[in-house]
Amino acid sequence: MKFVSLLGATGSIGKQTLDVIASHPEQFRLSSMSVGKNIDAAEEIIREFKPEICAVQNESDAQVLRSQVETSTKIVSGMEGLIEAAVSTESSVVVNSVIGSVGLLPTLKAIEANKTIALANKETLVTAGHLVMEKAKKHNVDILPVDSEHSAIYQCLNGEDRNRVEKLILTASGGSFRDRTRDELKNVTVKDALNHPNWSMGAKITIDSATMMNKGLEVIEAHWLFSFDYSKIDVILHKESIIHSMVEFVDTSVIAHLGQPDMRVPIQYALTHPERLELVNGKRLNLWEAGKLHFQKMDYDRFRCLKLAFEAGNIGGLMPTVLNAANEKAVELFLDGKISFLDIEEMIERAMLQAENMNQPELDAIQETDKRTRYFVESLLNKGR
Amino acid sequence: MKFVSLLGATGSIGKQTLDVIASHPEQFRLSSMSVGKNIDAAEEIIREFKPEICAVQNESDAQVLRSQVETSTKIVSGMEGLIEAAVSTESSVVVNSVIGSVGLLPTLKAIEANKTIALANKETLVTAGHLVMEKAKKHNVDILPVDSEHSAIYQCLNGEDRNRVEKLILTASGGSFRDRTRDELKNVTVKDALNHPNWSMGAKITIDSATMMNKGLEVIEAHWLFSFDYSKIDVILHKESIIHSMVEFVDTSVIAHLGQPDMRVPIQYALTHPERLELVNGKRLNLWEAGKLHFQKMDYDRFRCLKLAFEAGNIGGLMPTVLNAANEKAVELFLDGKISFLDIEEMIERAMLQAENMNQPELDAIQETDKRTRYFVESLLNKGR
Repeated sequence: MKFVSLLGATGSIGKQTLDVIASHPEQFRLSSMSVGKNIDAAEEIIREFKPEICAVQNESDAQVLRSQVETSTKIVSGMEGLIEAAVSTESSVVVNSVIGSVGLLPTLKAIEANKTIALANKETLVTAGHLVMEKAKKHNVDILPVDSEHSAIYQCLNGEDRNRVEKLILTASGGSFRDRTRDELKNVTVKDALNHPNWSMGAKITIDSATMMNKGLEVIEAHWLFSFDYSKIDVILHKESIIHSMVEFVDTSVIAHLGQPDMRVPIQYALTHPERLELVNGKRLNLWEAGKLHFQKMDYDRFRCLKLAFEAGNIGGLMPTVLNAANEKAVELFLDGKISFLDIEEMIERAMLQAENMNQPELDAIQETDKRTRYFVESLLNKGR
Repeated sequence: MKFVSLLGATGSIGKQTLDVIASHPEQFRLSSMSVGKNIDAAEEIIREFKPEICAVQNESDAQVLRSQVETSTKIVSGMEGLIEAAVSTESSVVVNSVIGSVGLLPTLKAIEANKTIALANKETLVTAGHLVMEKAKKHNVDILPVDSEHSAIYQCLNGEDRNRVEKLILTASGGSFRDRTRDELKNVTVKDALNHPNWSMGAKITIDSATMMNKGLEVIEAHWLFSFDYSKIDVILHKESIIHSMVEFVDTSVIAHLGQPDMRVPIQYALTHPERLELVNGKRLNLWEAGKLHFQKMDYDRFRCLKLAFEAGNIGGLMPTVLNAANEKAVELFLDGKISFLDIEEMIERAMLQAENMNQPELDAIQETDKRTRYFVESLLNKGR
């Protein structure tokens, strides 16, 4: 029996993690969880899974929740509560699927508590990869990726010598605007952007997929997760998203991971690694049903956000934090209808140009830069660009 | 330094094995070799690689070769000589790429001598898989496949639990007649059949590729190499031959091996396993250059030889020997212009229908059945079918 702490239980990854846990009751039990503000959903999850601890964002919500549930579940709140949910049970693995930079501190605390990390929170590695991986190494803790691309690479590296890797090759669907030229991107609407061809995801990640920033952040994550230089990370356009990613070795062999677009696969793998369990109600991949798989060389001028991500990664220090914060703010402004689609990359680039960098930044510098960058992007808007 | 015995040094696999050995002189040395009748080529190889032993088929050729080479290489002949080449040096690995059933006995002797087997000789597993794998298990010897499909599967299974495999999926290019209907196959010529789209190979294997018997034999080999029931082995049409084969796991994950059509990759992998070495002058796979990969469900009525192979494998005992011997004889007759392309499968089916089977046959029964089947197929011709 594996006890699981789940941070971010009501999001897309959170729900699917609960699915996986429920589908193998003999293998998994939910020992703690966190939600943001969705306490109705929290109540349901508590009734079904009866975790020891549930953390919510605000103490007022915690009070309401305490009055509503009659189980022995301890309801806690705030960052302190989130950390308690991450470390205070006997769980051996923490699934971190909270959104945004709030996911960073609980990850670090869970590593200190020697728990395996199943990581779906991008910010953790993008902004503080050096801190997380150093701590994971020190505590001999596995960081297992929970997204299809990195899980694919993780699986392709099974039983292999990492020194014999030539390239990590991330596949990118190209997002909702894959077939449009830059010129055609000028007047796209929010609605257009939210129409992703392969995956059904949240608004932020769907926009990131259309700008290719999602792939850019994944490149930075891959750099930290697998300890490869950016020169050894490639991205290839593959619109069907059936090959989830690949690893090329020095003997020219390429090992790839393929499958249906089902996030339960990487989630469950992160919980069972190095073993595999049956995926309950999983749909098998029959390649003849797809018929054809398409591949295209990545055009970095077409997808400027991806280029910016490689640049930020190569510069290092605080630059990935700037990239990420600027992107989050700009996407928010786009979703609010305040800027155009191409303004997103423009604002990120401006933020990177104005940023002051430092090497090996600590947590407070990262958080300070995150705030300052968002403020800067907001100010670009106010200046009536 | 790894010492290598190479049986069948002048064939296609043999030559490429020598390429691999020559390309990593710090890693590999040829300690013994065998050839059939091509003693001019043998002489050249002896001069370049200076093996301790060279076996040739006939003693008369051995005498000529002894008078021509002035090295300390010992020239031996016949089956006794072939076995001496397989076992009598300090080699740790025997590459068996001889053609036909003559490869079987040296393989068994090399296993008894505790040498790793890099196996390119199909007959060894197809006709005597039970004997070979039982002996390999007893002597704790690895049987490493030297063809792209099985090497691909071997690599996809790296670091994985074989009990969690759902399917082995062999890819098949479809051969020279992939796009022809059965009706259009009636009058194809030898020349048509020898025109394979992806790989440049010998005549026998090119015909086997066109009839899909090659894939059928690979299915039987896969059954023995990986100990999977035939119900867990699938074949899919993939005309580009870029995905070399795949393994599907119980969690719906599919791990695939991709690469250029370069036989040096599986050869070198068999020599270096579990490590990898740089492939000298190897061409990298860039999927965008291919652009598209195509997949089609296998039509077992269209490719009757493949169906027959599954049937022979499932029946077991001597039936795979009957399948293989009947196929070899029938292909020979086709290449000699004595029968039509579709007669090949017809003759194999007839041979299977008349065969008397037994379970767990010993080597002499296998060899007797091999002879008897060839005689039977020849007799079909003489009866003026």
